[in-house]
Amino acid sequence: MERIGFIGLGIMGKPMARNLINAGYPLVVHNRSQGAVKELAGEGAMAAGSPKEVAEQSDVVITMLPDSPEVHQVALGTKGIVEGTRPGMLFVDMSTIAPAVTREVYAALKAVEVQSLDAPVSGGEVGAKQGSLSIMVGGETEAFERAMPIFKILGKNIVHIGDVGAGQVTKACNQIVVGLTIQAVAEALMLAKRSGVDPARVREALLGGFAQSRILELHGQRIIDSAFEPGFRIRLHRKDLGIALQTGRDLSLPLMSTAQVAELMNALIARGGGDLDHSALALLLDQMGGGE
Amino acid sequence: MERIGFIGLGIMGKPMARNLINAGYPLVVHNRSQGAVKELAGEGAMAAGSPKEVAEQSDVVITMLPDSPEVHQVALGTKGIVEGTRPGMLFVDMSTIAPAVTREVYAALKAVEVQSLDAPVSGGEVGAKQGSLSIMVGGETEAFERAMPIFKILGKNIVHIGDVGAGQVTKACNQIVVGLTIQAVAEALMLAKRSGVDPARVREALLGGFAQSRILELHGQRIIDSAFEPGFRIRLHRKDLGIALQTGRDLSLPLMSTAQVAELMNALIARGGGDLDHSALALLLDQMGGGE
Repeated sequence: MERIGFIGLGIMGKPMARNLINAGYPLVVHNRSQGAVKELAGEGAMAAGSPKEVAEQSDVVITMLPDSPEVHQVALGTKGIVEGTRPGMLFVDMSTIAPAVTREVYAALKAVEVQSLDAPVSGGEVGAKQGSLSIMVGGETEAFERAMPIFKILGKNIVHIGDVGAGQVTKACNQIVVGLTIQAVAEALMLAKRSGVDPARVREALLGGFAQSRILELHGQRIIDSAFEPGFRIRLHRKDLGIALQTGRDLSLPLMSTAQVAELMNALIARGGGDLDHSALALLLDQMGGGE
Repeated sequence: MERIGFIGLGIMGKPMARNLINAGYPLVVHNRSQGAVKELAGEGAMAAGSPKEVAEQSDVVITMLPDSPEVHQVALGTKGIVEGTRPGMLFVDMSTIAPAVTREVYAALKAVEVQSLDAPVSGGEVGAKQGSLSIMVGGETEAFERAMPIFKILGKNIVHIGDVGAGQVTKACNQIVVGLTIQAVAEALMLAKRSGVDPARVREALLGGFAQSRILELHGQRIIDSAFEPGFRIRLHRKDLGIALQTGRDLSLPLMSTAQVAELMNALIARGGGDLDHSALALLLDQMGGGE
């Protein structure tokens, strides 16, 4: 069994690492704050003092970090992974970050004969705990196949999309579609409500036709119930749309509606709603339209 | 069997009227241009010279017209339906128009003891021909039940949403969700394509998760294939979003993304794309981003 290093033990990373321990993998962990490290050490993981030390003791190093700068620092910075590698090691970044940074890290590690996969996930904390995440993977087929037994512990819907960066691009696409569809459902159901038409009847009628979506089904119900506890937090979705927009700018592709929805998320965060579920875009619309 | 009057024999109205003839209903028809009138007269319909004359010879009068001004004129104008009614007649408007105009016509006809239903449809020309339209109905329950045998000839998914105008509001909601979801899918799949990632792989991966929608399934495939022949024409969808936006303005509800997508449709129409399918929002994005 491969020795796995796991860096980043947050809301997502900790239950993922725990699932690997429970599957019998030897695990070396590292995290900025020590609470989660001690917790997992009590369940059989070894603690390492730096990403470099994690790499020195691992065959496969997984990162699950908040954003692009953290991945860049952990992979390529001082005492970073790159300082502890040897040829044949595999690096798997499961964070959601900018495809451009993914490609930079990929190239730097390739220079020391380390293969990389970008493997961002969807499915949230519940999916992380249950080992039912969707995993969107970019990188070489050989590396993908090597990582597959590990991915199968962590997730269910595992798709090899294409070359390096393809996983991150797919995640960005996913977050665009989810964010904009929530806004679509919010505008429709608020229009119904303000018109004196029962939004629950509208939701049901629309689910039977071309307007059908999982967002209308799930987040439409949240909007009808004003059930805005997370779920997926607005501030995290804004971060993901920031990645999509930066990628669009790099390609001179004007993502008009993505930009608008990101700004609406900005407004919601400015009003103190950053820790609400992303379906709270409907709450913002309600307030913009004079509601309480 | 009730005698039916049918006004508006366009792409949608003509096959709908034909289905009623084939079901055995006595039909009186009226249309501005005479081609469709003569055609249906050859199949057993009677021709009438004005909406007033249609009303005089009918128990139920159905309209299927392009927009709000036409419905207002045909219902309440000179030689309009209102001049030919008697108490107990039923008026069913199946056009897609502004809920405010629906309510005005409803009130004027109620004053002469005529009940009204708003019953806009989705499903397009194919649905009209096959009698498989979705019908979203507003108005009194008694009137809805009276019209039900007729609706069953014309459609499949028939839902009584609520009081007068509720059908039109639901249709507006439907067009918001469909239009904005197409833009969402267009931005996502174009970002994938420009990033060098296969949009077909992205579509498949996204269909397995929260980003799933019928639009991603059907229009996502159209976008991948650049198959922009209609389908549902951009210029008709812009008209429908205009109704949604006017309704939002009447309620002081700021429909931010609906407004943006309507303007993108404007741009596409300005470039000569008004008769393309609404999935051609992706073509506009491609062109805005420097594509051919």
